[in-house]
Amino acid sequence: MKGKRLCVFMVFFLEPCTIMDSGSALRQVIMWLMDSHQVKQLIQSVGLNVLIQQVVDRLKFDFQRWSSFQKSARHAIYHPKGVLELMPCADDTLYSFKYVNGHPENTHSGQLCVAATGLLANQVDGYPLLLCDMTWLTAVRTAAMAAWVIEWAAPEHHQGRLGVIGTGAQAAFVVEAVKTLWPLKVCYYMDIDRQAMDQFEAHVSTMGVQSVRCETAAQVCQSVDVIVTLTAAKKHASIIQCCDLKPGQLICALGGDCPGKTELSAEVISKSRVLVEYEPQTRIEGELQNCPQHHDVFALHEVIQSSIPVREHPDDWVVFDSVGFAIEDFSMLVVLYTLIQSYPESATVLDWVPSVQDPKDLYGALMVGS
Amino acid sequence: MKGKRLCVFMVFFLEPCTIMDSGSALRQVIMWLMDSHQVKQLIQSVGLNVLIQQVVDRLKFDFQRWSSFQKSARHAIYHPKGVLELMPCADDTLYSFKYVNGHPENTHSGQLCVAATGLLANQVDGYPLLLCDMTWLTAVRTAAMAAWVIEWAAPEHHQGRLGVIGTGAQAAFVVEAVKTLWPLKVCYYMDIDRQAMDQFEAHVSTMGVQSVRCETAAQVCQSVDVIVTLTAAKKHASIIQCCDLKPGQLICALGGDCPGKTELSAEVISKSRVLVEYEPQTRIEGELQNCPQHHDVFALHEVIQSSIPVREHPDDWVVFDSVGFAIEDFSMLVVLYTLIQSYPESATVLDWVPSVQDPKDLYGALMVGS
Repeated sequence: MKGKRLCVFMVFFLEPCTIMDSGSALRQVIMWLMDSHQVKQLIQSVGLNVLIQQVVDRLKFDFQRWSSFQKSARHAIYHPKGVLELMPCADDTLYSFKYVNGHPENTHSGQLCVAATGLLANQVDGYPLLLCDMTWLTAVRTAAMAAWVIEWAAPEHHQGRLGVIGTGAQAAFVVEAVKTLWPLKVCYYMDIDRQAMDQFEAHVSTMGVQSVRCETAAQVCQSVDVIVTLTAAKKHASIIQCCDLKPGQLICALGGDCPGKTELSAEVISKSRVLVEYEPQTRIEGELQNCPQHHDVFALHEVIQSSIPVREHPDDWVVFDSVGFAIEDFSMLVVLYTLIQSYPESATVLDWVPSVQDPKDLYGALMVGS
Repeated sequence: MKGKRLCVFMVFFLEPCTIMDSGSALRQVIMWLMDSHQVKQLIQSVGLNVLIQQVVDRLKFDFQRWSSFQKSARHAIYHPKGVLELMPCADDTLYSFKYVNGHPENTHSGQLCVAATGLLANQVDGYPLLLCDMTWLTAVRTAAMAAWVIEWAAPEHHQGRLGVIGTGAQAAFVVEAVKTLWPLKVCYYMDIDRQAMDQFEAHVSTMGVQSVRCETAAQVCQSVDVIVTLTAAKKHASIIQCCDLKPGQLICALGGDCPGKTELSAEVISKSRVLVEYEPQTRIEGELQNCPQHHDVFALHEVIQSSIPVREHPDDWVVFDSVGFAIEDFSMLVVLYTLIQSYPESATVLDWVPSVQDPKDLYGALMVGS
């Protein structure tokens, strides 16, 4: 089944670019455009959990071929109000980048803290193939990533108990994704914002997942097998301490990632097996900031490609120090681009780049019809 | 007159973001979108030379306040067929980036070698303000930049003679820009592609500029005051040698910029005053590649902000080693965004980022209406 899915992706890769030759010398290369309304419509048509499963399959495929990618830590510009980032990567055929911001105070004016825009391009000619809002898609791929790690790194004899610390914009997506991949039975949760907890509880109940509200992060940790942190923690916070944890737990630290922000204590990190996406970026932005440079980490792609056990001993703590890496957006954009071929009505077709009679005559093409 | 223009920009800066509150709690932040057709329509409505003058004014303003920007060399991913680049920068209020490719073989399949997409965002909340095709706009800002440098760095007793070596996609834009700012009388030109020369000649004649076709680059150099190179030169080429030049000439090396590509001989560079946009990037991509690391260069922004003379002696050669820097795209995008306020029909208004009732409830906003 999995083999078949991978095969579809590989065949698809052979013709990534839709080029229409109108019969004249005029070459038109079309691009698909999707704003947030169109993305929402497509997710609703496909179904969120179907989409999550497709993204997980694609993530598995892309992490397996890690060395096929050109990678770099993201480019960030810092402002007193937030951060503005570019996350590019490429394989031999396709190139992608995401522009994403993080502005914690946006909620005060009714705006999202995180919004994103993504572009997928053909490496061979550089032309854009797809340009879209990625705000929801960022939540989807982050949740898919966490669920995939939970699927294989949760403690062996778990009882399907998930802890969610921080029930903001991202939290319900994670529960939906975990439920898609893992036998989730009950969700323990807490937040400092009661309204955010009410909303989260309502969403989780529509998923048919039992939920238990907690007063403290420690109470969540004591009740579950897997902990997910999703907070906008302030400077070098330590929301989880060693004394809060039980043996063998998996902690997915998803929230609060930028230089100066952490969620776990240095002691938790130093006593855990730490899984990372792309170490050079995680050292700058992740929980690893609280640790010495020499602290060993395990690259996700190496662990899944090898026979390295995720735990040496069943009681080991495992931390997935997730900061969000460009390949995850690449995977998401490829899934979306593939879906558009089945749902062409969901996107707008644009002549984004100028179509020209003669590619050396850009000036003439501008003046025609003036 | 100039003071007044700058003032308009600064007042405009105070409210860069169009936020509409629909009366309910729903916050909508709109974004302008322009594909290549819309950009073309706007340029035709405004007039190319009017646009060029506005871009030059904005470039002068932005280069004068160089230290206000967060800057970095561009992010490049290399592929056997070309290069894919991201060029971000920001001041305290606005952020911009351009995605641009360079694929020399695209012309063989009727496609452009260089296409570009740009985004302008509000630094304060990170939301995109404008997303547009920048293929023509890249040609416009490159030409505006060259014309501005020619305006103040041409030899003092010039006779309005411009030399153009390489008459491809960019060349006619440069002549149009130079004519807008400088008393251009005659244009000497050459290319290895006769058809490209025919087209260039036709465009230049519509501008009312006299033109003279040459057989060699040396012949062009011997006939003019200012030389512009616009070639897709192969590895470490030396299209211009010292023996081709006359005293006091200005050479604007605009073409062929990426690691491994140059247009001027190392001797020309070493004997000239070299002007650069952003030295860390020019050392990687520019003509400077042919020179030792310690070879002195002059940053454009320092020269225009100070009393440094562009030449110590009237016979000095001056080379503008232009590679194209992110601030130039920032300037271009701000001019475009300003123009859209006067020509709102030229762009599409989009709800690009999801509008939400509650910014902490991204999941709920996705599920509404499903």
